[in-house]
Amino acid sequence: MEPLSPNPDDPRLTEPVSGIDQDGNPVESRVVVERPLTLFLNGQEIVTMMTIGDHPDYLAVGYLANQNMLLPEDEITEIDHDEDLDVVVIRTNRTTDYEERLKKKTLTSGCAQGTVFGDLMESFEGVHLNTEARLHTSELYALTKAINTMPSLYLTAGAIHGCVLCQGDQPLIYMEDVGRHNAVDKIAGYMRLNGITAGDKIFYTTGRLTSEMVIKTVHMGIPILVSRSGFTAWGVDLAREANLTLIGRARGHRFLALAGQERIVFDEESGGTDTTRVEET
Amino acid sequence: MEPLSPNPDDPRLTEPVSGIDQDGNPVESRVVVERPLTLFLNGQEIVTMMTIGDHPDYLAVGYLANQNMLLPEDEITEIDHDEDLDVVVIRTNRTTDYEERLKKKTLTSGCAQGTVFGDLMESFEGVHLNTEARLHTSELYALTKAINTMPSLYLTAGAIHGCVLCQGDQPLIYMEDVGRHNAVDKIAGYMRLNGITAGDKIFYTTGRLTSEMVIKTVHMGIPILVSRSGFTAWGVDLAREANLTLIGRARGHRFLALAGQERIVFDEESGGTDTTRVEET
Repeated sequence: MEPLSPNPDDPRLTEPVSGIDQDGNPVESRVVVERPLTLFLNGQEIVTMMTIGDHPDYLAVGYLANQNMLLPEDEITEIDHDEDLDVVVIRTNRTTDYEERLKKKTLTSGCAQGTVFGDLMESFEGVHLNTEARLHTSELYALTKAINTMPSLYLTAGAIHGCVLCQGDQPLIYMEDVGRHNAVDKIAGYMRLNGITAGDKIFYTTGRLTSEMVIKTVHMGIPILVSRSGFTAWGVDLAREANLTLIGRARGHRFLALAGQERIVFDEESGGTDTTRVEET
Repeated sequence: MEPLSPNPDDPRLTEPVSGIDQDGNPVESRVVVERPLTLFLNGQEIVTMMTIGDHPDYLAVGYLANQNMLLPEDEITEIDHDEDLDVVVIRTNRTTDYEERLKKKTLTSGCAQGTVFGDLMESFEGVHLNTEARLHTSELYALTKAINTMPSLYLTAGAIHGCVLCQGDQPLIYMEDVGRHNAVDKIAGYMRLNGITAGDKIFYTTGRLTSEMVIKTVHMGIPILVSRSGFTAWGVDLAREANLTLIGRARGHRFLALAGQERIVFDEESGGTDTTRVEET
């Protein structure tokens, strides 16, 4: 199956802008577009997000799922996206009211959505990640190579974050957005709407392994999280607590694993240790 | 004057963690710490932020100033940081009540704080940035070189964002944090508490030039914003509207200017155009 991936040629996602370079010469560059999307759940306004806008349905469902506002047993009865109004409405069979919860917010670190509600942390504690899952280093190296060479808005315009749902050495779903949290949520929404299992998957992100990224990966039930970027201490702590396999600084044939090492199968030789500082995202 | 800069040796800011590398060999790495800080303004709980925690006073004041909750004419009567409770309280001569505003939030894009309140955009419209300010390319190249070689948590542990307040070719204040928004706010707080003028300064960020970064720079009154990373379309639009000089992809002797080009003085030859894709942060 061809992976579901970004379409860098979609004219709604980037736009040309004129400027000058270091010599004062005129240049034209492409930059990523961001637009507001206001999310309603059963008539209640939840949040306004800035997004590139390519998958409002996945983004809306994934946001609600990752915030625990949409429960696993909830039935989604309608998804209504109004492109002119920049509004998406999700309706469920269950009556919902999150007024109290919307008052309380915690700004998370890093390239974060900015908000993790208290009970997301609570639900996190009850999760049991698949202990049978394995990550072969040969697959990891093939996977990161495949991801880096896929067409993307990153290669076209830069200034964007990517997340990839993977299985073995195959990228399955590649989502990008101006906010990394949106890319994660779009994948969560796709998984929810298409009934994709999580226990046999690998989650790849271009961004840092912050607390929020770990919380969301665990919440989604995915046992392995990989990034080309680095770690934060709280991200490592949470990954260890949840028994999530946490791999950072994955570049070429090198990586650093700081949690859940027992899922890693070392079946391919590396080229030795590289201590080069990589650019964090 | 020595620039105020991060202390990578401060044991509260990073911690050692053990893991394994790509060959299964044990390695020890340093990772950045993040801790919660709950901000009160005159008895009202405003927000809980995740931060490395090195300058809670600057962070608190800068956050409130950048959210327009602390007005230019307000007098700060007390700053009280309780390290055990992870709480900081700011008191002002003016009675404040932001209950209504706290209900309404917009999640911004990128490595964003997640929240830009409506009236921040409104105040943005009344700002007039210094049109006499100039950026000489020779200063820019010296500045980016100086910043890249300063001791930093980035070089020690990675996975962190940096912002630098500069004048001419001199970095004055270098702040880092797990969230870029925190680094910006710490600089805003420092400027407010020390009466630093803005119109003759340059603001440098390691992160992307998103709408939020542009809004905050304009709100702080700084006429020139520089990044090693790329642009978003809305960031460019807002910079043009505010007449902010917006320079991205600044690496070595190369950059791209997409707004406010008239402040740039080309007094140093570059090495030609580089089209290499740089890593975005």
